[in-house]
Amino acid sequence: MNSTTGVRQVNRLLLNCDMGESFGNWRMGLDAEVMPFVDCANIACGYHAGDPGTMRRTVALALQHGVTIGAHPAYPDLVGFGRRSMACSDDEIRDLLHYQIGALDGICKVLGGRVAYVKPHGALYNDMMADPQKLRAVLEAVAAYDAGLPLMLMATADDSAAQALGDEIGVPLWFEAFADRAYTASGHLVSRRLPGAVHHDPALVVEQAVRLARGEALVANDGSALRLDAATLCVHGDNESSVAAVRQIRQALDALQA
Amino acid sequence: MNSTTGVRQVNRLLLNCDMGESFGNWRMGLDAEVMPFVDCANIACGYHAGDPGTMRRTVALALQHGVTIGAHPAYPDLVGFGRRSMACSDDEIRDLLHYQIGALDGICKVLGGRVAYVKPHGALYNDMMADPQKLRAVLEAVAAYDAGLPLMLMATADDSAAQALGDEIGVPLWFEAFADRAYTASGHLVSRRLPGAVHHDPALVVEQAVRLARGEALVANDGSALRLDAATLCVHGDNESSVAAVRQIRQALDALQA
Amino acid sequence: MNSTTGVRQVNRLLLNCDMGESFGNWRMGLDAEVMPFVDCANIACGYHAGDPGTMRRTVALALQHGVTIGAHPAYPDLVGFGRRSMACSDDEIRDLLHYQIGALDGICKVLGGRVAYVKPHGALYNDMMADPQKLRAVLEAVAAYDAGLPLMLMATADDSAAQALGDEIGVPLWFEAFADRAYTASGHLVSRRLPGAVHHDPALVVEQAVRLARGEALVANDGSALRLDAATLCVHGDNESSVAAVRQIRQALDALQA
Amino acid sequence: MNSTTGVRQVNRLLLNCDMGESFGNWRMGLDAEVMPFVDCANIACGYHAGDPGTMRRTVALALQHGVTIGAHPAYPDLVGFGRRSMACSDDEIRDLLHYQIGALDGICKVLGGRVAYVKPHGALYNDMMADPQKLRAVLEAVAAYDAGLPLMLMATADDSAAQALGDEIGVPLWFEAFADRAYTASGHLVSRRLPGAVHHDPALVVEQAVRLARGEALVANDGSALRLDAATLCVHGDNESSVAAVRQIRQALDALQA
Repeated sequence: MNSTTGVRQVNRLLLNCDMGESFGNWRMGLDAEVMPFVDCANIACGYHAGDPGTMRRTVALALQHGVTIGAHPAYPDLVGFGRRSMACSDDEIRDLLHYQIGALDGICKVLGGRVAYVKPHGALYNDMMADPQKLRAVLEAVAAYDAGLPLMLMATADDSAAQALGDEIGVPLWFEAFADRAYTASGHLVSRRLPGAVHHDPALVVEQAVRLARGEALVANDGSALRLDAATLCVHGDNESSVAAVRQIRQALDALQA
Repeated sequence: MNSTTGVRQVNRLLLNCDMGESFGNWRMGLDAEVMPFVDCANIACGYHAGDPGTMRRTVALALQHGVTIGAHPAYPDLVGFGRRSMACSDDEIRDLLHYQIGALDGICKVLGGRVAYVKPHGALYNDMMADPQKLRAVLEAVAAYDAGLPLMLMATADDSAAQALGDEIGVPLWFEAFADRAYTASGHLVSRRLPGAVHHDPALVVEQAVRLARGEALVANDGSALRLDAATLCVHGDNESSVAAVRQIRQALDALQA
Repeated sequence: MNSTTGVRQVNRLLLNCDMGESFGNWRMGLDAEVMPFVDCANIACGYHAGDPGTMRRTVALALQHGVTIGAHPAYPDLVGFGRRSMACSDDEIRDLLHYQIGALDGICKVLGGRVAYVKPHGALYNDMMADPQKLRAVLEAVAAYDAGLPLMLMATADDSAAQALGDEIGVPLWFEAFADRAYTASGHLVSRRLPGAVHHDPALVVEQAVRLARGEALVANDGSALRLDAATLCVHGDNESSVAAVRQIRQALDALQA
Repeated sequence: MNSTTGVRQVNRLLLNCDMGESFGNWRMGLDAEVMPFVDCANIACGYHAGDPGTMRRTVALALQHGVTIGAHPAYPDLVGFGRRSMACSDDEIRDLLHYQIGALDGICKVLGGRVAYVKPHGALYNDMMADPQKLRAVLEAVAAYDAGLPLMLMATADDSAAQALGDEIGVPLWFEAFADRAYTASGHLVSRRLPGAVHHDPALVVEQAVRLARGEALVANDGSALRLDAATLCVHGDNESSVAAVRQIRQALDALQA
């Protein structure tokens, strides 16, 4: 839900954005500028970013704008911003998820909100997407925390294995796609090391967002048609130009609903 | 509540003990040995001790023995074990309390328990007892987290100021006393630097516990009578001898109830 | 020494600036922009800011510009940016100084440099200035690390007690002053909470720098004349306007030397 | 060198032991008991264990017993005790090595010692042994810190690739073996998950130590003869029984020298 648009249809493409990634005196992300235009805020929980004060301010901002709050837990790696894979056991993953989700939920509770979904961050997200055993560990941890709590994860050309696991464990899955990234035929992101991996033309970004919202196929980097069944689009509030892109996407998607 | 004794009277002296103070590979405290004999477990929340795995194991152990779970939050100082005062603002204290209580509560929730009271640790506890403004900050944070959640703090000769503050903010206060420490006339602990500060004779420790349970006056270190209105007694599971002392105290207090 | 000006006279007012205060993915300070205009870089050592990679890049930048490298050690408090006083013992202060100085010195050594002075950061700096026992602890730690290694500390109206301590322990003292701050009659900074504490007019800042460089008295906030015997001036590279101020100060001081 | 035996021959098998793995209030390892019997102390540097105070006490103990000091750097993972592999880049590995070696060297310097070799800890050690690119990164970092500083690593059936790399980069290699572990034919440790991986019989441990000291072949777990060219033997001071084993090994090796 977003305060600027009122109630939304269930089937519209929600915008999710990483938030609360400041830490102590260090600022990161234009949260206040981008919050009015998104539906879901993935809020850092202290392991890769986010301290208790930052978390409280970010939760308050999300509540003020009617934005749905998600926990954005990570491996314990502040200096690496949670982007370095760590060989954690399944038990360790379960426990660090519960710790971080609980910490954010505690802060939400004080402010009248709650954690409404979970989206793992960085290397934990990548590891979960690459390894079905880790995805199972994450799903079981989410289900154990709160029956019915959804997990946000990456849409690919074939989500059936993830969906089967989510169904088995009882976790609703919110698949996300990207408007500013090129895709391979299998629905994975083209590596940033390759040319054309990131769309820099705002018109192209908006077009991809609209295609995803309409359920139309994208063109993968081998020229094939790629259909992604995405419930949400991941957008970025890192800087002024990314916030501008979010505004344009928001307008284009709202126009579809009108 | 304690599994060895079943339901208890409201007015009995509860035993509380710091627990879950291991961290990663480092072990501290004989939690499994002392848990059967206490009523309340003050469980570390990751800032001075306790990692998510340790927290989960400690919560599970407490639930298994029917022991009431308290959050034991601290200043963020692992290397100093939370024993060094830090000049945190009231807002910082509020936020670090909510983060830690929430994290523990999340782990409790998964295991079917809940945080039933809060006892600040180490320097945060001392600062709260020494500075009414910090006590107010702690009380307001506890009340904001959960209306009716009690705070555990130190009984002194005159608890009226703390009680008034607790009443104003709406936080039940659980005053605690010590059986193994000598007291000043004002009901403060004699400094460990002074001779006789710590009772090493088990008989003396048990006797002081029984006096506190009966509501009888202690003899302060200036010879005056000291009456402490304590709801709970702080005991220790650091080593075999302290666990033995807890067993003796437990037996003596149970005998009073019989 | 500064690469833009070549060899300097011993008695000129050196410019020192906090540097290397980024941490992991978080950026802080325009180090590359301000480095060409300063003489001394106070480089964070990982306890309040600065990770190994940031330290290496900052040391390399200092060496490239011929800037003298100082260690900028702090209390272990990343989330509080080392600005919160911590009740560390003298032994703890000694050990955390040696750890941090050694870490920076190791990185310097690899790049062909060395730690040439020590300037404690934030609350550790303030505590050292406020408490002679802590100043002694710091001085002894610096002397133990390297005989003859200077300590940078704050110039006040009467530096005799600090100077006596430095002489006793054998640590050269580099007193620093501020061009952008108002002073009390005793040579302490006017609290930021009071009006007029910070000079926002660049002309005023440059004028104060020039007065300090010439050894002329300032006007304290009670109207009295204040003479500060400063060997160095603390400047800031936080943002574009502070870097611009550093450039202006640099030009004005260079003009004095011409 | 060890105080109980005086000067030693170059070709004798040195005993190395992980030390200084306490952290803050948490104790680990019987350093004071085992130090008199070893030649080389691998001292933790704060990333997986060891705080500045622990490091100082451990260095002082090593110096008191004439034990050679090695840096024992790790991935930044206190809660995982450095045992979880982290996807650090080569640059990150270089920088974290320099930071940790420098920190320990700073503390050594104050006490009149120096870091005389480097032995990576835990997952960093394993990753270095498994991946030649990581071994190169470690070797280059060690060489950059101090030309001629040796690296301690694991002896296997064929050390030629590691030796060639060490020769190329100019780092002396100290290969280590284990007396209490079974080996595969390739000279790798039998996984702890398999039966017979660890020798529990003290006589067997001493026998393996003596064979290694004499340059005699061991029997691998497939029955083949395994020759390890080890300069040092890794021993453990975790508990009373491991310390007793170290004493027995020390006596047996000293008897060989007599």
